[in-house]
Amino acid sequence: MRKVTFGGANSLDNYFARTDGGMDWLMWSDEAMELMNDYWPKVDTIVMGRRTYEVAMAGQEVEEERSGGEGETENANPYGDIKTYVFSTTLPIGKTAGGAEIVSSDPGEFIRELKSQDGKEICIMGGGNLAKTLLEAGVIDEIGFNIHPVLLGSGVPLFYEMSRQIDLELLECKAMKNGCVYVLYKVKD
Amino acid sequence: MRKVTFGGANSLDNYFARTDGGMDWLMWSDEAMELMNDYWPKVDTIVMGRRTYEVAMAGQEVEEERSGGEGETENANPYGDIKTYVFSTTLPIGKTAGGAEIVSSDPGEFIRELKSQDGKEICIMGGGNLAKTLLEAGVIDEIGFNIHPVLLGSGVPLFYEMSRQIDLELLECKAMKNGCVYVLYKVKD
Repeated sequence: MRKVTFGGANSLDNYFARTDGGMDWLMWSDEAMELMNDYWPKVDTIVMGRRTYEVAMAGQEVEEERSGGEGETENANPYGDIKTYVFSTTLPIGKTAGGAEIVSSDPGEFIRELKSQDGKEICIMGGGNLAKTLLEAGVIDEIGFNIHPVLLGSGVPLFYEMSRQIDLELLECKAMKNGCVYVLYKVKD
Repeated sequence: MRKVTFGGANSLDNYFARTDGGMDWLMWSDEAMELMNDYWPKVDTIVMGRRTYEVAMAGQEVEEERSGGEGETENANPYGDIKTYVFSTTLPIGKTAGGAEIVSSDPGEFIRELKSQDGKEICIMGGGNLAKTLLEAGVIDEIGFNIHPVLLGSGVPLFYEMSRQIDLELLECKAMKNGCVYVLYKVKD
């Protein structure tokens, strides 16, 4: 069974982006980079919601403009060779030219099916409704966050209200030099 | 200038009580007790909102019923000799028989005035609206939480939306044996 991890950076008041999607508050560090370098080789599949996808695409457009790239921006998959699924009820179903796949099936069942296939770990990106649905469906194995030393005051919430309590077991906790606190939890059954 | 600290126990999804005020999810430990034993002697004043006060009083009623106490329950101050202020727009202003003082003035100005008086540290209890108002007013010096390894899914939120971003500096971080993570931050100016 493939491991499914939900995580990312958040503020202490549990936003993962500003209201306009802004991520300018993110603090980069060698320590965070090391965690990422350990994590990404274990993953071959990313799953996200439409909103996170659009923020990622917009971020890439900015990157390409900066580096003078032209033309292919709209169709590029910002996550390269990693298989990327995007849950959406509004985008056209199927593969994008950039290699992402838009799906609209039940997220819980979809992930349960993915987990039973051969492959490496699965990363759930973003937060909000998709995370809520997948946590309620009981398909997420671990959650990990890099809690930033800031109260954003408003933004896109990491956690929505859920229909049930979910108990966790702390696996790792590391205070970084820049004041971020990395926590990793196992989701208890 | 007296130091003002806001803090307490929270869930990873930032609730500090269940919707009905329930605190049954709290995990007690020798490590948490040590932190409390270090903290409380430094404090001589507690400030809370009406809702937190009512939860504290209700908790005490349960305690007194358990220990066979009678009669004085309604008037007792659950925090003993520590000066206790309760912000409320509905309760009658003035001292309760138990020694708490109900106030309805502007919370930011009230705390600013308290800070300038002689005395020990001031503890803000609870969360929600009072914490939001005091954080926005810039009168809180430190915030500290014992993040519990649980997603409650719903409850009374620790942080409300605020009109501005508040930057923090991590002062302490300690992972406890029971999976709680204690974090203490300085509020930056």
